[in-house]
Amino acid sequence: MKLWGGRFTKATDKAVEEFNASVQYDCRMYAEDICGSIVHATMLAREGIISADDKNAIVHGLKEIYRQIEAGDFEFSAALEDIHMNVEQRLTEAVGEAGKRLHTGRSRNDQVALDTHLYVRKEITGLAELLVRFQKSLLAAAKKNSDVIMPGYTHLQRAQPILFSHHMMAYFSMVSRDFKHLRFAWHMADMMPLGAGALAGTTYPLDQTYVAERLGFASIYENSLDAVSDRDYIIAFLEFAAGTMLHLSRLSEELILWSTAEFGFIELDDAHCTGSSIMPQKKNPDICELVRGKTGRFYGHLMGVLTMMKGIPLAYDKDMQEDKEGLFDAVDNLKFALTVYADMIDGMIVNGKRTRQVLEEDFSNATDMADYLVKKGLPFREAHAVVGRAVRKCIERGIVLQDLSLDELQAMNPLFGADIHHYLCIETCVRQRKTYNGTAPESIARQCAAAETVLEEECRQIDIWTAVTNRVYAVLQ
Amino acid sequence: MKLWGGRFTKATDKAVEEFNASVQYDCRMYAEDICGSIVHATMLAREGIISADDKNAIVHGLKEIYRQIEAGDFEFSAALEDIHMNVEQRLTEAVGEAGKRLHTGRSRNDQVALDTHLYVRKEITGLAELLVRFQKSLLAAAKKNSDVIMPGYTHLQRAQPILFSHHMMAYFSMVSRDFKHLRFAWHMADMMPLGAGALAGTTYPLDQTYVAERLGFASIYENSLDAVSDRDYIIAFLEFAAGTMLHLSRLSEELILWSTAEFGFIELDDAHCTGSSIMPQKKNPDICELVRGKTGRFYGHLMGVLTMMKGIPLAYDKDMQEDKEGLFDAVDNLKFALTVYADMIDGMIVNGKRTRQVLEEDFSNATDMADYLVKKGLPFREAHAVVGRAVRKCIERGIVLQDLSLDELQAMNPLFGADIHHYLCIETCVRQRKTYNGTAPESIARQCAAAETVLEEECRQIDIWTAVTNRVYAVLQ
Amino acid sequence: MKLWGGRFTKATDKAVEEFNASVQYDCRMYAEDICGSIVHATMLAREGIISADDKNAIVHGLKEIYRQIEAGDFEFSAALEDIHMNVEQRLTEAVGEAGKRLHTGRSRNDQVALDTHLYVRKEITGLAELLVRFQKSLLAAAKKNSDVIMPGYTHLQRAQPILFSHHMMAYFSMVSRDFKHLRFAWHMADMMPLGAGALAGTTYPLDQTYVAERLGFASIYENSLDAVSDRDYIIAFLEFAAGTMLHLSRLSEELILWSTAEFGFIELDDAHCTGSSIMPQKKNPDICELVRGKTGRFYGHLMGVLTMMKGIPLAYDKDMQEDKEGLFDAVDNLKFALTVYADMIDGMIVNGKRTRQVLEEDFSNATDMADYLVKKGLPFREAHAVVGRAVRKCIERGIVLQDLSLDELQAMNPLFGADIHHYLCIETCVRQRKTYNGTAPESIARQCAAAETVLEEECRQIDIWTAVTNRVYAVLQ
Amino acid sequence: MKLWGGRFTKATDKAVEEFNASVQYDCRMYAEDICGSIVHATMLAREGIISADDKNAIVHGLKEIYRQIEAGDFEFSAALEDIHMNVEQRLTEAVGEAGKRLHTGRSRNDQVALDTHLYVRKEITGLAELLVRFQKSLLAAAKKNSDVIMPGYTHLQRAQPILFSHHMMAYFSMVSRDFKHLRFAWHMADMMPLGAGALAGTTYPLDQTYVAERLGFASIYENSLDAVSDRDYIIAFLEFAAGTMLHLSRLSEELILWSTAEFGFIELDDAHCTGSSIMPQKKNPDICELVRGKTGRFYGHLMGVLTMMKGIPLAYDKDMQEDKEGLFDAVDNLKFALTVYADMIDGMIVNGKRTRQVLEEDFSNATDMADYLVKKGLPFREAHAVVGRAVRKCIERGIVLQDLSLDELQAMNPLFGADIHHYLCIETCVRQRKTYNGTAPESIARQCAAAETVLEEECRQIDIWTAVTNRVYAVLQ
Repeated sequence: MKLWGGRFTKATDKAVEEFNASVQYDCRMYAEDICGSIVHATMLAREGIISADDKNAIVHGLKEIYRQIEAGDFEFSAALEDIHMNVEQRLTEAVGEAGKRLHTGRSRNDQVALDTHLYVRKEITGLAELLVRFQKSLLAAAKKNSDVIMPGYTHLQRAQPILFSHHMMAYFSMVSRDFKHLRFAWHMADMMPLGAGALAGTTYPLDQTYVAERLGFASIYENSLDAVSDRDYIIAFLEFAAGTMLHLSRLSEELILWSTAEFGFIELDDAHCTGSSIMPQKKNPDICELVRGKTGRFYGHLMGVLTMMKGIPLAYDKDMQEDKEGLFDAVDNLKFALTVYADMIDGMIVNGKRTRQVLEEDFSNATDMADYLVKKGLPFREAHAVVGRAVRKCIERGIVLQDLSLDELQAMNPLFGADIHHYLCIETCVRQRKTYNGTAPESIARQCAAAETVLEEECRQIDIWTAVTNRVYAVLQ
Repeated sequence: MKLWGGRFTKATDKAVEEFNASVQYDCRMYAEDICGSIVHATMLAREGIISADDKNAIVHGLKEIYRQIEAGDFEFSAALEDIHMNVEQRLTEAVGEAGKRLHTGRSRNDQVALDTHLYVRKEITGLAELLVRFQKSLLAAAKKNSDVIMPGYTHLQRAQPILFSHHMMAYFSMVSRDFKHLRFAWHMADMMPLGAGALAGTTYPLDQTYVAERLGFASIYENSLDAVSDRDYIIAFLEFAAGTMLHLSRLSEELILWSTAEFGFIELDDAHCTGSSIMPQKKNPDICELVRGKTGRFYGHLMGVLTMMKGIPLAYDKDMQEDKEGLFDAVDNLKFALTVYADMIDGMIVNGKRTRQVLEEDFSNATDMADYLVKKGLPFREAHAVVGRAVRKCIERGIVLQDLSLDELQAMNPLFGADIHHYLCIETCVRQRKTYNGTAPESIARQCAAAETVLEEECRQIDIWTAVTNRVYAVLQ
Repeated sequence: MKLWGGRFTKATDKAVEEFNASVQYDCRMYAEDICGSIVHATMLAREGIISADDKNAIVHGLKEIYRQIEAGDFEFSAALEDIHMNVEQRLTEAVGEAGKRLHTGRSRNDQVALDTHLYVRKEITGLAELLVRFQKSLLAAAKKNSDVIMPGYTHLQRAQPILFSHHMMAYFSMVSRDFKHLRFAWHMADMMPLGAGALAGTTYPLDQTYVAERLGFASIYENSLDAVSDRDYIIAFLEFAAGTMLHLSRLSEELILWSTAEFGFIELDDAHCTGSSIMPQKKNPDICELVRGKTGRFYGHLMGVLTMMKGIPLAYDKDMQEDKEGLFDAVDNLKFALTVYADMIDGMIVNGKRTRQVLEEDFSNATDMADYLVKKGLPFREAHAVVGRAVRKCIERGIVLQDLSLDELQAMNPLFGADIHHYLCIETCVRQRKTYNGTAPESIARQCAAAETVLEEECRQIDIWTAVTNRVYAVLQ
Repeated sequence: MKLWGGRFTKATDKAVEEFNASVQYDCRMYAEDICGSIVHATMLAREGIISADDKNAIVHGLKEIYRQIEAGDFEFSAALEDIHMNVEQRLTEAVGEAGKRLHTGRSRNDQVALDTHLYVRKEITGLAELLVRFQKSLLAAAKKNSDVIMPGYTHLQRAQPILFSHHMMAYFSMVSRDFKHLRFAWHMADMMPLGAGALAGTTYPLDQTYVAERLGFASIYENSLDAVSDRDYIIAFLEFAAGTMLHLSRLSEELILWSTAEFGFIELDDAHCTGSSIMPQKKNPDICELVRGKTGRFYGHLMGVLTMMKGIPLAYDKDMQEDKEGLFDAVDNLKFALTVYADMIDGMIVNGKRTRQVLEEDFSNATDMADYLVKKGLPFREAHAVVGRAVRKCIERGIVLQDLSLDELQAMNPLFGADIHHYLCIETCVRQRKTYNGTAPESIARQCAAAETVLEEECRQIDIWTAVTNRVYAVLQ
């Protein structure tokens, strides 16, 4: 019989039961559910709402159930709907009466909110470590290839020469923002919902401060209706995840491009590529494509939860049960993607000879020629026009700017001097862009040093988060 | 060793292998994969590309594998990536050399496309039946409650009296459009991709017409690049599914509203509701809320595939592997939702006394009062204004229009006659709206009769589709 | 004073009025609104609901308003909310009493539905022409470059040699499906909603069949509640538009790639590119990038309408007013994109020398080597492995397959014969793939011929649609 | 002639020009563009890159252009593509040579980034004020109706009695989180991109710190590639906006429900409602429906930008031009929605008699009955079952729990005592839920007091933001 069935005259339809059940996926939160229940029971006893004996029986029973689940000896039942009812039912079977007192002053509405808050915080901690690991790979690739010059692109047209390190550090910056986004998601998740009851609070003298403190929450929800119907922290997490995948999709696109025969800028390790069932020569950057493609599911999960929450009245509605599958899938796929990407960046070989050589055949130094004229006194717009015409001529003749003789150049504009060819040299182009975030070696060195500081800060943050999550799961000991 | 590994010097990274593998979900298409391979092998033999003996060995081996999978005796391996490689590898283990000839003139790119086309057609057939079943429930509810009058709403404000049947038939109409959408999805899926090879066609004299005919396809892809990189049919299916859920979400909202204490229009069967872990009185329309909430995941799956396909070059890219999980999830959830909804509508009890009674306390007959004046010669805009003022007066006095005496009415406008009270009667209001698609009993009767015709057509369509899918799976016999 | 204000004691808040108004964008449908009103009034007179004199005054007044709007002499007012009220108010100012009778038996709910159905059908007709125009450009490019061989790609790695025409025709196929999608959208839009009234039908003896016939609708909505609350046809249109943009985004990606210095396969016309404000050498494929980027807004509009419709009760809700801006924006952007793309494809120059040359440096003929061995009797999987190892050796030595001597080849596998070098020749590779949809010249010729037939069918469809829309706007004469 | 046209041999196609132009919408950022240019020119002069005279001419010219635009005397030209080129061209017309020097060391890529960062910060400041204004309305409504008891709902079924204030304060909490989201968006926008040049930094000795300081930025982008291709701050803004609309959509749903004849809980002011063109009695909560419906467009804009950014390579791509229209539309609609909602909440009248009365007819006190038994010693699960059966009996007899006599109750369970009827009283139910975030008057009073503190903090934040934005626009004086 259902634990809530007193009012009903008829059993639930079998198909309905299956459709309605969430235990097939929310069982993933068993540790959180049990931790929450242990702390809840402890608090009930501290407040004299249940006896110390009942509390002991409950805590002991819950720890045993935890061990059973960990050992794979626990059979979940769809008829019991969710992880909460499955655990409570088993507890009552094991410890009797005391088990029936566990749910005092609590509803599944605030219980599932608590579990999910704990779960999200745990996964944030894990993902923060993976972000850092990935950033370290990017930084290492930047340092390892510090002398590699490559074309920088806008509109996928060669624009100006840059250091390969510059490119890697651009992704480092993006991931740093992802880390900030993750902080925001933590902040949104770091509120304690238990004690909200079904929606209106409870009639028992619960000590919510104690529960929050034991579970390491920074604050308690200000409003119980909000506590049971808030899914903003899940949305914030999915926004973080979608944003991170957006960045990975851009890197993926570039790795795919650079791996083509046409670009030939990098070689991914065999261990991170796959072949073709039919074409024996193929070595495909499958991982990059998969990650780029998976971006879609992350956007989809975000849209899914946003849609689900649109226009539903307070407080809890069953619609909200739909918050978890997308969340879990996002967690799994993001962990995988970050792990594999860190390895792949570590194993990637950059073909610096090729990236340098292509610059000789192009006009990436055209801006430098214009800048040269500006420094000689020509207004920028006129310098731009002079060089534009020079480029057109070169294209017609099949040559590049540095092939023009001084005479030819002076015929175009008398300001050109003998030093122009120095300024058209690719290495000069790179060295000259020494603005704060520019591509000159000294600018990149500064960026790499600053990156170390960012990593230190992030690691300090992770230490704090780890301590919080450890504190939670310590109640299982 | 990987079947494609000859060119590689290093094994695939373990994590990459797992990330890359799709067999954990594409194993769902084992029947389609095996049917496709049987027909492919048969064709190869007919064309003399492989021997009859090899063909026989292959077909026999594949049927045996099918039986093993059906019996649960087949262990899928992530190292073999996907359903295709898993089956082919096992086949070769079982029948030797011949197995290695199966992939002649084929690539996984066209193979997976074939499997998915077959799969989508099969599921369309099943879903078509569920749509019809659901429509029959709606029609039955319309007929069963043919004498129930209820308020019709716009802006969720009572607007005009309607028949409850009218409301049910509105959903019937929506689902009829869903069926049309399904036809479009079938049409998009009903093209045969095999023979496209990896992308460019093959060097073997394949008989694609034979394959198409044996597998019941209406046509063959005109272009092999397109054949391996087209996912429009999956998008069309997800659009159908999202649209159907949109309709169900609207019905869900209404069933939830009607089940409230405030409306009190219907009572859902206990078998389709659940209770609360804390509040003993609760009987919650969980199914309706879940379906409304699940709309989000359908929109998400659609957005996911659209995003995945955005901006990827021809022909096949690994991104496309991401087309399946959302598709499968949509199929499962939609089947469930339609099944449960049909049952729920069947079990729903309408409180006709309540829906009729509330109309006495309201102004749903105001339009009829205006129409009355129009028929007496007043321009509609003036009639509207007269009745607007009458309503305002009634609200101030706490009465309704039919409470106004003839004297009072005539003081407002001399065109009112003694027959006005007849026209304000709720039953008259309903009976008077006998336009083609209006709410009068005779109009509804017409709509119900037309619905029978629609159902007949749909069933004829289903018969055709069923014959096609039966034809495919017959090759397993 | 508002036309609906009789019941109200207080005027609308100014900000609310502005927020609520839709006339700033729905004024775009003035022709449809006026056509609908003319036919409605004509029908009212035919049925004796209004007098012939009133009808004549209305029709004359409406035509005059149409002329004023066309001439830019009509000032729209937000206080009058929408196009419907703006027109009706002006009509009443112009023709007096008769104008107040126009709205008899009609509501804005069915009126706006009628206008939007007419509008969508009109735009479908226009877009169908642009699709055909774009397809003709693709076909012309295929024919013009019929001798250009290029690498075909999977995973953006060179896979097998194909004809450039093959690639163009792949897009032709995609656009053919877009045309089918458009047919579906027309089908969904081709139902007549007028006569549904606010929601329940009307008490007047309207002749809906006459209205449908005059406005060229294939059918009348079966159910009035559905008629005023159906937005499926708008969703269907946005799905068509999103799908078309998806295809264009893929083509955009390829044109961007092919325009890079690295690929160098095509040159877009100067007229379709733009430069840089700072880098004088740049010639950017902006149009391609813009179209690729605009894909986002189309997905967004689709998501927007799906979200808007989620979970709202029958019949009309004000939420639905949000259906138009995304629709209009999609129409405008899609028209632009198709027009510019047709021109751009016409102006594109393909560098066939380059596309052919790169194939010499690669392993795109590896599958052909494997197929060679298969035809000599080796099972495909073994042939695949032999060639895989050959490729590895070539890479190590910096050569390609055709550089291997017969002796070297035979050392790998004795089945190699003197004719192998013939089969490794790029031209042979292309010529050999003569399956139905393959890349061989004869297959492409067949595809081009079939394309002509498709175009003819599409043009026949457009003729039919044009006749229907002409019939509608003829009432303005 | 285009400012970038030197390299081109052919003029831009007219349609392309129009398609490509952004000035029709990015002209909205004219103030930001001019402020940025003034500071840029000032910095160039400080560094000796341009002369003081040139700087003075530029600054004077730009201020004049600002005045012209403000006065409506500036005609924007699509041929000049965007706001940047329009301003620069006009400047050069006005001040000659000096104008051609303005673009020194700058690209449109970093210029448009700067403008948009400034714009987003400005709008954040304005929206923060509107959020606070809306929160004040919610708090005022909570205080004004502090004695109103209403049913609290889960699953839209009456659950437990709550204070109306509790409900209002739940929304206050949600909006507080929106404010936090806004802080995050500010943080993401508060980085200075100028000096990044086209992508790689510049060869001029720019003082980026000076620019950042004059424009009040907290930091400078660490990496120039990232600086020109980052759109995370726009996404963060749209995520904030979507989240806020999600909350408004829930409130809208509730206001719509409460305004129905069935609920009858509130009366919205006539000034915030509209009527029907056909049904004279209608008073529709259009604003609420519109806001609920507009949620769709916000989700759509977010989806649009996410899609646009998916998979595009570094650094700037033209796709990114598509970031603005959705942003602007979101800003406009959100401002409107928040303004109108604050007014509407201020004008809303709560029918406390009605909300209290309905509780007498229901079982909202069932949990209290169970809690009563628990406090007498019964385990919660058993108490739940006892009350469940009591509810079933009452339903059968058409009565409610408080109608049961003590004898009847004791027959169900002997623990019931004479005080049970006190605990079933609705007022007691409310008063008893005095947990931290519960519904008891003292809990709500605490929440209201805490809300004042939140508002103070928010206002302090707004003061800081206002100072920053004032500092920017001060350069126009």
